[in-house]
Parts: sequence; C-alpha cells; structure tokens
Amino acid sequence: MLDAVRAQLVEYGYDGLGIDAVAERSGVHRTTVYRRWRDVGGLLADVLAEATADDWRPPDTGSLEGDLRALNAEVYAALTEHPPVTAALIAASFRSAPAAGALRSFWADRYDRCAVVVERAVRRGEVPAGAEPRRLLVAATAPLYHELVLLRSPADPRLATEAARDVAAAARAGAFGGPTAAVSVRNGHCSAVEAI
Amino acid sequence: MLDAVRAQLVEYGYDGLGIDAVAERSGVHRTTVYRRWRDVGGLLADVLAEATADDWRPPDTGSLEGDLRALNAEVYAALTEHPPVTAALIAASFRSAPAAGALRSFWADRYDRCAVVVERAVRRGEVPAGAEPRRLLVAATAPLYHELVLLRSPADPRLATEAARDVAAAARAGAFGGPTAAVSVRNGHCSAVEAI
Repeated sequence: MLDAVRAQLVEYGYDGLGIDAVAERSGVHRTTVYRRWRDVGGLLADVLAEATADDWRPPDTGSLEGDLRALNAEVYAALTEHPPVTAALIAASFRSAPAAGALRSFWADRYDRCAVVVERAVRRGEVPAGAEPRRLLVAATAPLYHELVLLRSPADPRLATEAARDVAAAARAGAFGGPTAAVSVRNGHCSAVEAI
Repeated sequence: MLDAVRAQLVEYGYDGLGIDAVAERSGVHRTTVYRRWRDVGGLLADVLAEATADDWRPPDTGSLEGDLRALNAEVYAALTEHPPVTAALIAASFRSAPAAGALRSFWADRYDRCAVVVERAVRRGEVPAGAEPRRLLVAATAPLYHELVLLRSPADPRLATEAARDVAAAARAGAFGGPTAAVSVRNGHCSAVEAI
C-alpha cells in the first residue's frame, strides 16, 4: 500500500495522489483505504511514520567529522535519488498539514537518534561539553537541504563532505553551545585566543 | 499588480492564484495580464524579479558575527512575517518551475551581494583568506530555513543569533575553505593544533 503511495507520488505528484488511484494501484479496496487513511494527508503521514519504524542508527566511524560525513552521505543520497521519493515527500509537506507534521516528527526522531554522534565526540574529547546535538546536526545537514531542495542547485557530492568538515571544525572550536573562543588560525597555528 | 499577486497568494495559496483572480483584484484587464505574464508561474517569477531590482546591500556592522547576525535577523523576519509572503513564495516554488527558477535567481543575487561580508572579514584579518563566501553564507542562513520552513519549528529568535555565532566561530577557525586546523578549545585556550 505504502509502496503504491510512494510510486503514485513520484510519478504523478501530489495532485495525482488520490485515495482511489492508490486503491487501484495497490489492489486494496477503496472502502478499506478510506476507512483506514481517510485522505491523502493520512497516506503520506503513514509513509513517513513507516520510515520511523526501522532500526536505523547513525554510523560510528570513530570521529565526529567521519560520522557527519556518513550522515551527510545518506542525506545527499536521499535528496538526489531516483525516483525522487524524499524530494516528493518534502514537496508534499507544503500541500498537506498532516504530511508536514509527519515529516517534522520523522526528522525529530532522526535527530534524536543522531544525538549519540555528538555524545561520542564529547566523550572522545573531540568537542567541548556543552555542544547542543540538534543545533550541531542541523548545521551539518541544513546546507544540503538548502542547496538541493530550496535552491535547486546541481547535485555535487562536495556539498556533503564540505558541510561535514565545516561543522566538525566549528564544533572543535566550541561552536553549537560550547565555549566559543576568538581563535585566529593562520598557517595552522592559533594566533589569538579569548574566551567569549 | 504584483501587490495583488502577493495578496492573493497569501490569502488563497497557490491554488487560489489565477490570472483571472489577479486581474480582477488589481483592476488590470485580463487580456493584458495574459499577454504579459502568460500564466501563474510568470506572475510569481515577476514578484521575485522585482525583489531583485532593489538597492539592498548587507549591513556593515564592523565584524563578521555582527554582519551575519544582521543578515539572519532579516531572514528570520522574512520567514516569520505576517502575512507570510516569503513562506508562500517558497511553497509556490514547489508548484511552478518558473517560480522555482526565479527564487533560485533571487537567492543567487542575494548571495552575490553578501559576498562583501566575507571579503571585509578577510580584510580585517578576522578570517583566513580562502573562505568561500557562498559556502559561509549558506551555512549561516540554512539552519533558519531548515527549522522554520522545512521542520515547521516554532519561531525562536535564538535560531538567528546562534547560527551567526556558530558560523563566525567556524570561519575564524578556518572552515568554509580556509585552512582548517584540529584546534581543541578548552576553557578558552587552544590545546592542540594541526593543519589539515
């Protein structure tokens, strides 16, 4: 059923997504579909809820930058995949309040699962305690969504690796809630430090 | 005419945006509207093109973090304004390829105008040469779009100031194309530096 929803969404867009069309495509009786999902928003919300029901955990590469590169590689793959299911779900979130709410919940769950990435980095001594997981994770992933979804920029894998590197460097320098210092880096050496 | 388009978009959404409705609202004859703008995509593209035709320049506060805070304050205001014109234009970009292209051009022009923020920071010696302006600017602004547009998070002005602080700290540490170093900051002091 949910495969039928995804396929219909990708092929025909939100406007081509109807309870009848999905019922026909999936072979499930119309009445059953109406009774269970009520409307298109309900179908999309279930597609996203299903994505939350898995065992996905963020990779553990041994370093913050490595973990962020791995996360961003997954985000990049989702935003450039064919068929473009993720992009279609994001577009659909602008058409349906239940879909928007389900997308928000899906991402909130993903950020929760990824908080361990920041905890590991603190335990390793890579970043100062005080770094706020969600703030750091949003900083790492947001540039990909911004370029690929909002700006419609051409696919470029460097987006993923550069954002990971930039955020890892920032985190080590105490950004995202840690103690930021006015550190000037010239030729790889600290030239001035003031706690802010 | 374009005021009518914005008003219609905000009040009735993309589906309420029609050449006839806009013609009626603006008092311009239907035929004129059809001849000039051809369709809804054309109208939206013109709304965005008009926004590019102004003299806007980024504020010059004397520091990178100050400049980024000022930019983010403007982005935050646009994304939380009432009526929600900017949010409606972004949503409309998912319905119309011309609108998406116009939004992309609008933002490309804004990033070009803001490149001077990074150039000033390099001239001041605040950030190392090599920092890539668009990469830095996207990093500063993307978290606001991510939280407020995609995640539908509640409005919180700290989003704007925190993203500005995080990116300024990252830039000083050589991120965004500058020479990143493995700098550990504890209690405001550099404890280890290696050029990467």
